[in-house]
Amino acid sequence: MAPAAALALSLLLAFLAIGPCAAADSIDLWPMPQSVSHGTQKLYVKKDITMSMVGSTYSDEKSILKDAFQRMLDLITLNHVIDGIDPGSSVLTCVNVVVRTPEDELSFGADESYNLTVPTTGDPLYAQIQAQTVFGALQALQTFGQLCYFDFTSRLIELNSAPWIITDRPRFPYRGLLIDTARHYLPVKTIKGVIDAMAYSKLNVLHWHIVDEQSFPIEIPSYPKLWNGSYSYSERYTMSDAIDIVRYAEKRGVNVLAEIDVPGHARSWGIGYPALWPSESCREPLDVSKNFTFEVIDGILSDFSKIFKFKFVHLGGDEVNTSCWTRTPHIEGWLNNNHMNVSDAYRDFVLRSQKIAISHGYDVINWEETFNSFGDKLDPKTVVHNWLGEDVAPKVVAAGHRCIVSNQDKWYLDHLDASWEGFYMNEPLKGINDTKQQQLVIGGEVCMWGEEIDASDIQQTIWPRAAAAAGCGLRLRSSQMTQDLSRQDWRASGVC
Amino acid sequence: MAPAAALALSLLLAFLAIGPCAAADSIDLWPMPQSVSHGTQKLYVKKDITMSMVGSTYSDEKSILKDAFQRMLDLITLNHVIDGIDPGSSVLTCVNVVVRTPEDELSFGADESYNLTVPTTGDPLYAQIQAQTVFGALQALQTFGQLCYFDFTSRLIELNSAPWIITDRPRFPYRGLLIDTARHYLPVKTIKGVIDAMAYSKLNVLHWHIVDEQSFPIEIPSYPKLWNGSYSYSERYTMSDAIDIVRYAEKRGVNVLAEIDVPGHARSWGIGYPALWPSESCREPLDVSKNFTFEVIDGILSDFSKIFKFKFVHLGGDEVNTSCWTRTPHIEGWLNNNHMNVSDAYRDFVLRSQKIAISHGYDVINWEETFNSFGDKLDPKTVVHNWLGEDVAPKVVAAGHRCIVSNQDKWYLDHLDASWEGFYMNEPLKGINDTKQQQLVIGGEVCMWGEEIDASDIQQTIWPRAAAAAGCGLRLRSSQMTQDLSRQDWRASGVC
Repeated sequence: MAPAAALALSLLLAFLAIGPCAAADSIDLWPMPQSVSHGTQKLYVKKDITMSMVGSTYSDEKSILKDAFQRMLDLITLNHVIDGIDPGSSVLTCVNVVVRTPEDELSFGADESYNLTVPTTGDPLYAQIQAQTVFGALQALQTFGQLCYFDFTSRLIELNSAPWIITDRPRFPYRGLLIDTARHYLPVKTIKGVIDAMAYSKLNVLHWHIVDEQSFPIEIPSYPKLWNGSYSYSERYTMSDAIDIVRYAEKRGVNVLAEIDVPGHARSWGIGYPALWPSESCREPLDVSKNFTFEVIDGILSDFSKIFKFKFVHLGGDEVNTSCWTRTPHIEGWLNNNHMNVSDAYRDFVLRSQKIAISHGYDVINWEETFNSFGDKLDPKTVVHNWLGEDVAPKVVAAGHRCIVSNQDKWYLDHLDASWEGFYMNEPLKGINDTKQQQLVIGGEVCMWGEEIDASDIQQTIWPRAAAAAGCGLRLRSSQMTQDLSRQDWRASGVC
Repeated sequence: MAPAAALALSLLLAFLAIGPCAAADSIDLWPMPQSVSHGTQKLYVKKDITMSMVGSTYSDEKSILKDAFQRMLDLITLNHVIDGIDPGSSVLTCVNVVVRTPEDELSFGADESYNLTVPTTGDPLYAQIQAQTVFGALQALQTFGQLCYFDFTSRLIELNSAPWIITDRPRFPYRGLLIDTARHYLPVKTIKGVIDAMAYSKLNVLHWHIVDEQSFPIEIPSYPKLWNGSYSYSERYTMSDAIDIVRYAEKRGVNVLAEIDVPGHARSWGIGYPALWPSESCREPLDVSKNFTFEVIDGILSDFSKIFKFKFVHLGGDEVNTSCWTRTPHIEGWLNNNHMNVSDAYRDFVLRSQKIAISHGYDVINWEETFNSFGDKLDPKTVVHNWLGEDVAPKVVAAGHRCIVSNQDKWYLDHLDASWEGFYMNEPLKGINDTKQQQLVIGGEVCMWGEEIDASDIQQTIWPRAAAAAGCGLRLRSSQMTQDLSRQDWRASGVC
């Protein structure tokens, strides 16, 4: 395990020590699976435990499963040396993984369910994982790893309270974490460390807020001067770096959602192409009056579509201050010629950008201001990303749109006063009672905006609070939660 | 490169951007080698650059050199993807390393000198490293890596300003960094991350202050209850972990100096063996009156000698408050029977401990209080470790003892108000003019005490200030520094 991963894990372990989800049972699993039963027997895990795939139709050509198994082994040793003493007790020698489908492309809504059984008898004694897809099997390996810990007496890995029978499936198909590489550049390795830690909590979407008004760190081959807006020559991602990050994430069951935030939050674009600014002195939002603006957006999304294969792209659309449009003569003239006010122009900008994204095969995600301003005009397939408060999600799904929940008061990680209890108790379906409308909430996302953090403290700021969201609202059903919310002893009773 | 290593490197790079050692030349090497000359030509480093060892008598059986070469390649890519475009320019295809001696055991005073040449002509074009030992070659690879950087245009590794002719050797054989795993436990991976970063600055001694009054995290097979004094069941190092750390360090040219600090700073010992406390209510220093105390010290040092193969062991001896000895009846009686006061007892404790360490083959290092209190009684081979101020080193070497310099006002990393300029300008030979006495200063050490840091911020607190010490006082001669200290523009003139 890499140091940052070790740090993330130790933060998570410290968190578990405070308030495990099912404290009453003393089952130290996080997130808590949907169903868990166990016994009382202690097993030891063989130093050179192996993985087999008897019964799988999946071939693991990309070594997704084998690599995950090795990472799990590295993780449970916590870098301690396993001495290999045979204690003469029950020793688990193998994990057999049955994956039922041969596909290995990570797609939105992929079946992530799994069964995990750890018996106490058998020769050889082996654990059994059954999953529809390799990505379910990855989650099963995470759970298996959490059953194991290094024992300082035997110098082996112990697995207590066997036999185990665990069945699990996530509540939502979209369980996201936002990172922001525009306010502070994050080295590729740091991003990979975040992805590693996401996998521990079974989060499955890295929302990469790549660019913003402060910097444009990524290479866009179609418009190669765009990354002139990077903070420095070195604080950049090549296209190859982006491909590397996407592949790294996919091998861990994590999708990468790329965002360009238009028309606001885009001042850095004009460092390379000043024509994108309304004027030299008024630099944001992007110039709505020029075709060139949309040609650049088309170039970016065309380049993105070769790399970011997730079903969705995020087009932002939040916090648009249009004063530069009215204060710039050529744009004011264009507005007048087209009989538009700035609200019309904002709407048309977003809708035109949506069409471009759709032409490149994407479904579009937009921040909630777009819905709040002209929800009835949005493409019907738009996913509305809530952030301002908790009231919008019911309106979004009532209007027939899909929704991602990130209400800032509870799920913004840059709000340092947002407590882990708040992350834990936030309910994405609050105020939505209709079953069909509930299904339009595809999930939620915790957001680590980058103004105040960089590579040195991003992991400490994300965890353990992100794990609280991953372990409760994002992962498990709220039926029990609703009932227990009224109790003062919810922490002891384990509401999830 | 692991995230923590990336962080350490980025801190170092940020530091270099502020004040490179030889700003006048714009040579971005750190620490600055003894002699550097270069040209103006740009080379590219082949994506799959290889290492050869033509002319070496060293076989690299332990893969010390090959692994270091691979780490250097990982480092210079900064995890960017090298696209492998052939720019049709001069391409460096190989580094040939000539190591003259076959030995691969890291020992105190090992020859760490090297020559590094990077020519601009030749087919194939290759860099040449010459070193007496593999550990000199490791340092050459660090320097070579610093000549290279990822170029965002060619997507190759560039090496500018060739040809290069560099010769280098460190000023002192002991260039240390102290870490403290007693005040906060540090995971094994965190310690490894610190070792990685030490190698970047060519520091070569990790002073591992393992135990203190707060916790006893390490396994001692001879006295297996000692690590009952760990903070928790998990915050422990097995003997195998310690071996792993020592091997990891050795492969990077870093010695590990183990410390047990006696008779003060040892309260945690008594959790497992309460007989080591003067009494249940007065728990420090260790009970000087019992043979058992010295049997335990003998057991620890016997176990240490199987693991920590460095020439030295550190026995502490600082900050001994003897009031518990006079306040405990059985110890007071023992003092009276032996016609000793507490000062005598402190002296005898230290000297008896020294004899035990020597019997296990060690040379002893003690903190300066031992010298200040009874310097004439110390074993002649004792190395006195300065920390209180800058005046003691001249007295130590005048008395014929060896000395390590760590004056706290300049080289204590836990002093957050100690500036990098202070780390940079601290002169270990200050006040020592006699050449033979100067040779008794074996080096210096920067100290990262653990009260206020843990795994989450140790790297940020160590670097870049430790690199300032590593780049100036510890690495280069002070002749130029003395002259330039009087100048106000020392930073611009590059005093080292």
